[in-house]
Amino acid sequence: MTEAAQFLRRRQLLAGSAGALATAGLVGFADKAVAQAAPAAPAGPRPLPAYAAWKDADAVIVHSATTIETRRSAFGTSSITPTDRLFIRNNLPAPDAAIVANRDAWQVSVEGVRNPRTISVGDLKTIGLETVATVLQCSGNGRGFFPSKPSGTPWTVGAAGCVVWSGVPVRYVAEACGGVASGMVYLTGTGGEKLPDGVDPLSVVVERSVPITAMTDAILAWEMNGAPISLAHGGPLRLIVPGYQGVNNIKYVKRLAFTSAESQAKIMSHGYRITPLGGTSVPGEPSVQQMPLKSWVNYPAGDRSVRAGTVYVTGVAFGSGAPIGRVEVSSDGGKTWIDAPFVGPDLGRFAWRQFALPLQMAPGNYVLTSRAIDAAGNVQPQERLENAHGYNNNSWADAAVKVAVV
Amino acid sequence: MTEAAQFLRRRQLLAGSAGALATAGLVGFADKAVAQAAPAAPAGPRPLPAYAAWKDADAVIVHSATTIETRRSAFGTSSITPTDRLFIRNNLPAPDAAIVANRDAWQVSVEGVRNPRTISVGDLKTIGLETVATVLQCSGNGRGFFPSKPSGTPWTVGAAGCVVWSGVPVRYVAEACGGVASGMVYLTGTGGEKLPDGVDPLSVVVERSVPITAMTDAILAWEMNGAPISLAHGGPLRLIVPGYQGVNNIKYVKRLAFTSAESQAKIMSHGYRITPLGGTSVPGEPSVQQMPLKSWVNYPAGDRSVRAGTVYVTGVAFGSGAPIGRVEVSSDGGKTWIDAPFVGPDLGRFAWRQFALPLQMAPGNYVLTSRAIDAAGNVQPQERLENAHGYNNNSWADAAVKVAVV
Repeated sequence: MTEAAQFLRRRQLLAGSAGALATAGLVGFADKAVAQAAPAAPAGPRPLPAYAAWKDADAVIVHSATTIETRRSAFGTSSITPTDRLFIRNNLPAPDAAIVANRDAWQVSVEGVRNPRTISVGDLKTIGLETVATVLQCSGNGRGFFPSKPSGTPWTVGAAGCVVWSGVPVRYVAEACGGVASGMVYLTGTGGEKLPDGVDPLSVVVERSVPITAMTDAILAWEMNGAPISLAHGGPLRLIVPGYQGVNNIKYVKRLAFTSAESQAKIMSHGYRITPLGGTSVPGEPSVQQMPLKSWVNYPAGDRSVRAGTVYVTGVAFGSGAPIGRVEVSSDGGKTWIDAPFVGPDLGRFAWRQFALPLQMAPGNYVLTSRAIDAAGNVQPQERLENAHGYNNNSWADAAVKVAVV
Repeated sequence: MTEAAQFLRRRQLLAGSAGALATAGLVGFADKAVAQAAPAAPAGPRPLPAYAAWKDADAVIVHSATTIETRRSAFGTSSITPTDRLFIRNNLPAPDAAIVANRDAWQVSVEGVRNPRTISVGDLKTIGLETVATVLQCSGNGRGFFPSKPSGTPWTVGAAGCVVWSGVPVRYVAEACGGVASGMVYLTGTGGEKLPDGVDPLSVVVERSVPITAMTDAILAWEMNGAPISLAHGGPLRLIVPGYQGVNNIKYVKRLAFTSAESQAKIMSHGYRITPLGGTSVPGEPSVQQMPLKSWVNYPAGDRSVRAGTVYVTGVAFGSGAPIGRVEVSSDGGKTWIDAPFVGPDLGRFAWRQFALPLQMAPGNYVLTSRAIDAAGNVQPQERLENAHGYNNNSWADAAVKVAVV
């Protein structure tokens, strides 16, 4: 059975056993299913769903109730992406808002340690505190540029943001539990979403494994951008794995386990894999984990013409933890490049750097893009890595914008 | 005539000529008048005013329609103060929202340069771009701790926040106008609020002068925390003078002038002066300009008891531009001190640094406070500078919180 057929089958099961989920188009673990299930687009932009009604409607594109993208023109140049402009991509509907009514009472089970225990958020706050700025990005960011038109949300550049988190380092939590048990090589987080009845939990649960080395930087976060994490973004507690694609940053985390093997959940074993074009996802293929080196131009955004003269071309650049060395900008589709200065504070190696290049632009048509070079000399590539589900796109050619200067 | 009498007189004038202003309690240039004019406090918290209805009501204290304070318990530890939790202190009612409908069309007149001209925000965006994190603080922050009970809003610690701004450096704007004219020693900004009829404009206009040296760091900002500056916070264009008290950061700035003398506006000549207790403000007294070295504890906030054990004591420290060297915390009201580690990214010398000290606390009562030491070795003082209007309070004793550990 093909992946697509499996999705359709699962969807039919859900339609019977969990009508509300199916109605909302919230089916399966990969967002490609959502697009398949989406009804014909209504006239005009889709409204914000209730749990995210506080988002800035003018700054986002609502793809579906669980997939909301930041407009390229709405990123600004202030380093941090404000919460009301940040993208949303949920694999399952958000849990009931009751879970954020008493945040300190939320519990996470810590396993794969010498002394396993369940710890409340209130107790986590006595174990440690760290604040870190990270890029949060859906691994499907840039899927919309794949000519193969993979099913799933056709994100362009806006399924990403730079966010400040506060929480307790995972390494301190492990210490508080006597240390990691021997033989463990993965850090596995499990989301606390309510699972539908009548389906194999492993087929829908949001559970992901990352290499245990990621615990050096990972935190269990209760605060985002200066406020308790909203329900829409995974509050009361979210596992943040700096440098890793968004799906590994488990919302409503209810279990943190050091494990000897990767999770057997479908979202890990088959989902979010780099599958050859036309192929079927299978375990063993590369998983969507560390973020590839990437940058893009946010202004001009290509949504309107620009006046001739000096134009400050701005954008962002980031990787999985290596500092960004420099950024180049091209206005001729990549034939020639100019170094673009950084602007604004450096929020650390997991944040993005902003660049701003004053460019003299005469009337005409341009193809603007940027490419990042990290401190080790790695260069953001021109070509995307082709794959069946449209993950990990970091092509500078794909992210280019066509700009008319008048 | 005493200052208070002058305020009352001006208020009576306004009551006749600009009823709407008086009704809103928005009278005069110093917030002390607002408190005098405020009606008896209604039962329960005051509601948010319409222009700031999007603020997080649970995170703020509404003193009046133009004075809104961040709760000490709402600061978090994410370095940046989210816009919906940031304090508001307006000297006049915000202009009509029409001014933010077409932001790029807003104009600022640049004077005291070789080639004076009026420049639109759209054109400013072609002159330069800089992004800077600054502490924005009302000079009356801490007034509520003065035993002399100065009239005016009794802020405790929440008339402050750390905010990221993007805009054009003032020095580039001056260059674009042929450079500063000779003999100019002040940078003077004028707010674009609508002034009431029937009163001397100089008695109400928001116009402040800072030493011209401040232009090295000053910017004309159009973006705050990643979004266009809201009307409530001075959009479409605000003069940001890093390191200077809030009143010098002119909202809706319509005139930027390099001048040979300080502004003659009442808010400059008589307002915001460090006046001896019982005295009357006169020109020549020290003006409220650069921010003194300051820190305070945000958690525990003293609003509820804390469980015995390890408590992460967190807070913020900042000055007027000298980097913070270290922060000490005391749990016995200043008898003994412990170095507190910094936490989170360093956003630059005009931002605040966060600290987080894990403290073992047995049941009992504590007086928690912090003091900042800057890179030059200056130490935040124990005593406030007594003054008639309650400005520039940076006493670590005043900012202390009483905490019950159970």
